[in-house]
This record gives sequence, structure tokens and C-alpha cells, in this order.
Amino acid sequence: MTKLINNLCVIGTGLIGGSFCLALKEAGACEKIIGAGRSEETLRKAQQLNIIDSYETDITNAVKDADLVFVSVPLGAMESVFEKIAAGLKQAGNEKAIITDAGSSKQQVQQLAEKIFSLNATGFNSSRFVAGHPIAGTENSGPDAAFADLYKNRRVILTPTENTDSDAIKRVTELWQKVGAQVETMDAEHHDKVLAATSHLPHILAFGLVHCLENMDDIEDVFRFAAGGFRDVTRIASSDPVMWRDICLNNQQPILDMMKRYKDELDMLYNALEAGDGEKLMEVFQHAKQTRDKFTH
Amino acid sequence: MTKLINNLCVIGTGLIGGSFCLALKEAGACEKIIGAGRSEETLRKAQQLNIIDSYETDITNAVKDADLVFVSVPLGAMESVFEKIAAGLKQAGNEKAIITDAGSSKQQVQQLAEKIFSLNATGFNSSRFVAGHPIAGTENSGPDAAFADLYKNRRVILTPTENTDSDAIKRVTELWQKVGAQVETMDAEHHDKVLAATSHLPHILAFGLVHCLENMDDIEDVFRFAAGGFRDVTRIASSDPVMWRDICLNNQQPILDMMKRYKDELDMLYNALEAGDGEKLMEVFQHAKQTRDKFTH
Repeated sequence: MTKLINNLCVIGTGLIGGSFCLALKEAGACEKIIGAGRSEETLRKAQQLNIIDSYETDITNAVKDADLVFVSVPLGAMESVFEKIAAGLKQAGNEKAIITDAGSSKQQVQQLAEKIFSLNATGFNSSRFVAGHPIAGTENSGPDAAFADLYKNRRVILTPTENTDSDAIKRVTELWQKVGAQVETMDAEHHDKVLAATSHLPHILAFGLVHCLENMDDIEDVFRFAAGGFRDVTRIASSDPVMWRDICLNNQQPILDMMKRYKDELDMLYNALEAGDGEKLMEVFQHAKQTRDKFTH
Repeated sequence: MTKLINNLCVIGTGLIGGSFCLALKEAGACEKIIGAGRSEETLRKAQQLNIIDSYETDITNAVKDADLVFVSVPLGAMESVFEKIAAGLKQAGNEKAIITDAGSSKQQVQQLAEKIFSLNATGFNSSRFVAGHPIAGTENSGPDAAFADLYKNRRVILTPTENTDSDAIKRVTELWQKVGAQVETMDAEHHDKVLAATSHLPHILAFGLVHCLENMDDIEDVFRFAAGGFRDVTRIASSDPVMWRDICLNNQQPILDMMKRYKDELDMLYNALEAGDGEKLMEVFQHAKQTRDKFTH
């Protein structure tokens, strides 16, 4: 039986890339997986864990024979990784490769791809780049955190442009479906707005909550008497700081818009409580509960 | 074998009161449990679920023969419930009863108890009142939500004053230990400050997050693409609105202090992001992660 992909190159073999590899292996969808990345220690670990079959620390070499390159590095590393991929594909005369990524914001990644994977500059056609974002993850990071079921029944958003090759979109879609994900497409601007609300804002709120408690005199008691609610609200404050700094900087305006909206909400709640306005508080809490219950049940 | 308590009267047979009853029954610590409360439907339900043995809708009657009265009603109902308890105990000449509560803020409850359970006014001695707060709960409410294990390995904070009867403290402590809880004591002011940080602020932030997204054009997408992080952060926004309105109003100043602190934190993060200050963001996220990891592992 032919595999979906013969040669897969995964750049960044942490939670996201590692889980993608493990899931594809479990599905028998890949002939060979080569890992690449900056840290040889991480790559060695990924190989020990059978996430990848072999590795290269030089991305330019790693992509030579790739049918598909999966980029799962922090957004801040995307530009230099894209440049190395373009150089490697050009050197090898590899024109068939599809490139896709797993970055949490999409407009800037798309712009980078169009700039770097341009036919004139690199000989590689940017239409073979498919921007993607799996809506899945945990607060843990690194190859150790990877597991084959991460994408099962989770959504993956692809944000192709009108220039994206339809065969490339089809191949990337099939791969995600193979690991159990539901694939949807939307434009990058809409993606970035929705994710600012559902993911980026909540992460900032959680980081901010832990950080603002850090310097309290009673910090030991604060954590000693924290119940399940606190632990749940702050779980994502244990996420990778580099990844989240990069997401903030890459999706700056949509996140600022959501933060502004949230700051206004908090001001309103503060004023209501200061005025002892139980009716207003009740109205807000009731609406919030109804909305959440409606969408989660 | 003698039971810890012969006649227990539980006022409010929802998640908190109901779970207390189920746990005491499982531990064989109670001879007889009588439930009381405003809603006969809730009481009937609690009896069907074997949470209580019998019920009274008239609190004044319910407390007549009680050795211990456990008050687990929203804070806003505390005053009128205390008045009915005092009247019932006075009528019955019941001087031995201990009263304790499960309210989430303690300074105001303590003041109410001292006002209402005063020897002169009611013939009942306020020193037999032991203010308490189990640090346990779920986002669900009502007798259906109650379960015997809710308090297992959870902390219960008692906030006795220098006038509280030491025998009463001992009896209440034993009961909580019997259901698997770890009992600690602190003064009410410290309790209210710590809980404002660990519980009250996070609940307000979660209610506020869902509420501020409610009116977005993309609300369907927001919830459709919400991952585990969003669901965790907002879980407690499904909590009982009445209970949380009352907690806010009863612990107003400590909560306002924490909200002010948090608003300053968000302003700082907003400004850092607006300035594209990745170093500042990184510093905050890193500190937050370190603090949370340290206290949760």
C-alpha cells in the first residue's frame, strides 16, 4: 500500500510537531520522517522516543528530499526557518515539496511565506505553502510532552489564499484527517480575530493572574488555599513563554483589540461592585453562565 | 457506638450542604439529619437522594432539637436564616446547639452572627457559632450535584474569634476531619484577603471573559474553535450567579483591591504589547510559569 507521504520533514519536534509524527506513524501514513531543528539535544530525544527516524541539525539539508515539510517552531523562528527551507529546496531542485505550518497566528506567517517562497527569489513556488493551525495543545512542551492522540477529534484550521495550490491543500487536509482531526478553512484575518478571543486573550489573562499574585505577602497561602477553580484558570499560565511572547507579537492588533474589550469589561464590573450594584453583577454572571452552558453542553 | 452528632440540621441542601450530609452518612457520623430551606422542591429532592432523613420548610422548627446546625445558603440569605435559627433555638430553649456555616467570605458572616446570636437578644450564646469555609466545590449546584467525596483531602478554614467556645471549635473540627478534610484556622480578615485572590478574583475574571465575548459578531466561531485552554479558564463561569453576586457584595473591599491590582497588571501587559516589548512580555510569562509550576508540582 502506498503511504500518503514518503518523506516527511518536521522542523521543530516538540509537543506539536512530535505529536503530529507519532499520530502519522500510528496511522501508517508516512514512509520516513526526518526531524530538524536548532537543538541537537531535542532532536536526539525525539529520535529516542521514536518520534522521528533520523535527524539533521542543518535545515537546508533536511528538506532536500521532502515531499512535505511541517514547520512547528515558535512564530519568532518562522522567518529564518522559512529562509533555510527555501534555500534547501532551491539547492536540491525540489519543486514538488509542500510546506505547511502549525503557527497560532496566520496573517504574518502568510506574508512571510509569500515573501520568502517566491518563484523569482528562490525557485520555489509560494502556492505550495498551506498555512495551518491545529486547535490543540497542552501546557507542556518538548518531545516528552508529545502523544499520538493530541489531534483526535480536534479542529485544524487552514487559511489558504486564492493562490494556494489546490492539490497542496488537498494533501495537507488528508494528512490532518488521517490523524483524526476535523479540517476547516477560513481566511487568515478571521482566524486571527477568532483566536485572539478564544486562545490568545485567555492565555494573557492567565499569565497575568499568576504574575499579579506573585508579589503578594500572602503568596504561600494564596497557593495553599487555591482550589480547583484557580488551578483550572491558571493551567495555561504554565505554557511555554517563548511561544506565547511570539504569538503576542505576531498577532498584535487583534490581541490588543480583545484586551481593550476585556479591560472595559473589568472596569464595568469594578464600578458595579464598588457601587454595590448586585443587580448588574447578577445580570453579567447570569448571561455568562447561560452562554457558556449553551456552548459547552 | 455513639455518633459524633445525634441531630444534625442542614440549612441549604445543595452542592455544599448535600455533600456534607452524604459524607457524614458514609462515615457513620450522624444519627439523624434534618434538612431545611426555602424551596420544598429542593428539600424533597434531597430526601429522595438520601441526603437528608426528613425536612422542614420552617427553619424555626427544624433547629429545635439540633446538636449542630450547618448553614450552607448563599451569603445574601445568611442574615434571615440566622434570625430564624436564633428564634427557633430560643423558643425551644436549646442552649447546647453549635452553629457553623460554609460561606465563602467570613468577616461579614462573623459580624452577623455576633449581632444575631447575642445572649441578650436571643438567649443563644454567639460563642457557639464557628465560622467556616470548605475550599471545595464544582461549577454545578443543587442536591443533584452533591457527592460524598467532595471534601476528601480538601482544606477547610475555620475563622473563630477569641470568644468562640473551644468545645464548639473542637466538635466542628472533628466533623470536617470525619469527612476527610484538613482543617486550618486563621482570622477572618486574612481569610477574606486570601480568598479574594485565589477564588473570588478568578471567578470574576472568568464570568467577565465569557460576558465580554458574548456580543462579538463571531461568537459562534469563538466557541466552535475554543480549545481546552478556553474551556478550563471559563469553567467556573458556569457557577451559580446568585452565590457569586452575594460573595462579591459580602467581600467587597478585598475583591476591589484584587481587581485593582489585576487591572494594573493588564494595563502593563497592554502597554508592553502595544510597544512591541517582547522582553517585557517574556519576563512576565516566564515568572508566571515558574511560580505556577513551583506551587503545583
